Amino acid sequence: MAEIRWDIIKNNWVGIAAGKALKPNEFPINKRGIDTNGNHVFCPFCEGYESYTPPEIMAIRPNNSETDKSGWSIRVIPNKFSIFNPEESLEKEKSGIYCSYNGVGRQEVIIETPIHGAELHGYDIDRIVMILNVLKQRYNVLSQDDRIKYIQMFKNQGVFSGASQGHSHSQIMGLPFVPCENPGVSEYYKKTGSCLMCEIIKQEKSRGERIVYETDYFLLLCPYASRFPYETWVIPRNHYEHFGAISDAEIDDMAMICKKFTGVMIDSLQNPAYNYILNSAPVNMPYISGFHWYLEIIPRMLVTAGVNIATGIYTNPVAPELSAQMYRQHMLNME
Amino acid sequence: MAEIRWDIIKNNWVGIAAGKALKPNEFPINKRGIDTNGNHVFCPFCEGYESYTPPEIMAIRPNNSETDKSGWSIRVIPNKFSIFNPEESLEKEKSGIYCSYNGVGRQEVIIETPIHGAELHGYDIDRIVMILNVLKQRYNVLSQDDRIKYIQMFKNQGVFSGASQGHSHSQIMGLPFVPCENPGVSEYYKKTGSCLMCEIIKQEKSRGERIVYETDYFLLLCPYASRFPYETWVIPRNHYEHFGAISDAEIDDMAMICKKFTGVMIDSLQNPAYNYILNSAPVNMPYISGFHWYLEIIPRMLVTAGVNIATGIYTNPVAPELSAQMYRQHMLNME
Repeated sequence: MAEIRWDIIKNNWVGIAAGKALKPNEFPINKRGIDTNGNHVFCPFCEGYESYTPPEIMAIRPNNSETDKSGWSIRVIPNKFSIFNPEESLEKEKSGIYCSYNGVGRQEVIIETPIHGAELHGYDIDRIVMILNVLKQRYNVLSQDDRIKYIQMFKNQGVFSGASQGHSHSQIMGLPFVPCENPGVSEYYKKTGSCLMCEIIKQEKSRGERIVYETDYFLLLCPYASRFPYETWVIPRNHYEHFGAISDAEIDDMAMICKKFTGVMIDSLQNPAYNYILNSAPVNMPYISGFHWYLEIIPRMLVTAGVNIATGIYTNPVAPELSAQMYRQHMLNME
Repeated sequence: MAEIRWDIIKNNWVGIAAGKALKPNEFPINKRGIDTNGNHVFCPFCEGYESYTPPEIMAIRPNNSETDKSGWSIRVIPNKFSIFNPEESLEKEKSGIYCSYNGVGRQEVIIETPIHGAELHGYDIDRIVMILNVLKQRYNVLSQDDRIKYIQMFKNQGVFSGASQGHSHSQIMGLPFVPCENPGVSEYYKKTGSCLMCEIIKQEKSRGERIVYETDYFLLLCPYASRFPYETWVIPRNHYEHFGAISDAEIDDMAMICKKFTGVMIDSLQNPAYNYILNSAPVNMPYISGFHWYLEIIPRMLVTAGVNIATGIYTNPVAPELSAQMYRQHMLNME
């Protein structure tokens, strides 16, 4: 049984698979280290290997092909290695000074393409639109489960991003609590009555030095306190709390940005591993003001080192003003 | 000029090298990726290459050899790529909703051996004793600089630990603020009047399931909310706040543990990358009760993935009770 344990020293949650122990050679770094010649080893996310995954939750099947068989375009499955179990109700357990919850939650994998080796920046726009629609749909389904308090979407691409599968995919995770990661957002609202992200947009637009690109619906910028070199955020220009409320027009716009910007990032940074991280507002709890959904795009040029694990502080060798300048030029060159 | 920027969303500090931008191929992942054949490429930490580093801060030179020349056993140098500058006084700058400090601080590299490829678990005990003595000495020197409020020591070993140099080394970092990483420690003291780490020792000893090893001065355990698979802590059994107060007998004991336990970890986990992280109490500020220094030893079997960057939550596929059992057995087998 999985547990979500409270770290009494660091004031944070840790999800722990309490009953099993991966062997050293089952870890992604070792597993993927073997495949250094680029050989296409067995991949459970490939078309034709559907029986190696848990049964699908949903799929886009253009020709109405049979569930859990070939013929799909996008496929959503439970994460087989999730520490979370969607079938239980939340229970707290105390053990002396320690405390934990049982591992209630959901973790789903969106297999974005049947083609092994295809990557986001190479997809047709139509595929990216479909993926965003699937994410929206799953977001709205998960938010109906009242045991879930926060929905985190993310994508790991490349071994240095933490991806354990090479085949392109995204993930959506429904957590039984709101993580403590963005406390400044609600604190700022309490203090000022304004949305922090809206204020950031206003200030960034007035100066321009960290702005990468702007569309009808979104602003791309390298954040002031960028934790990672060449980190970029995609922020809806209008105040929206939930990703689940995104419109068709916004999805079209966002798909174009994802394709264009990811292409620029891949080219200009020499094909780095990267994460996409989609932050939204809490669900199924008393309303908290000040959330504004946004997407973080993080190339992984550095491995998280001792100093970060030790202190929580990131050190970033590239000023966001310089990252933005570089990206801005490349985005312009593509016009 | 470097800046330490406040992340207004995540309530955290980010050190940013404001004036320069590393090019993609200058990042460690790319730089080291080239050297996949294990070829010994140019290394500025090797004996004979002293002129490629900044002038040494101190060195152990058994035959009184000349400063910044060959003939050393351990060498301490400033971190050439540090974002911190030891020469300034702390100044705060506001910029609309944002704020930053200038990059005051110190970051030193302890080159642990002149031999490229030698690693901690293979050192003679005498060398480990010397390294710990150098760390103690630098800790006590840095704590005399009243601009420094916290001293973080750490070691990155292997590319998946974030090490940008293959040659074995440790680092010591003097920060102009206390990082927010271990808030539970002082909160627990305020609430109960007891040291949290002493309470942890008491509870762990009463149950035993997460204990790895015990010596005259130290307890080794896999922490209850282990963030990383096979994470292990070395905790002084007596309540000490500052690493700088470690005695000779304790250093001897700790050196033995470092050699023995690291050897077990390297063997049983198939030579993983790892971090050593040494946490101590704040310095040069009004006294805060409840700190108790300890060492975290973290094998890096996983790459920090999107979910951790997004939420701050770690997910750990190996329960600490199972890690402890595995290590305990291996430590016993060495007796």
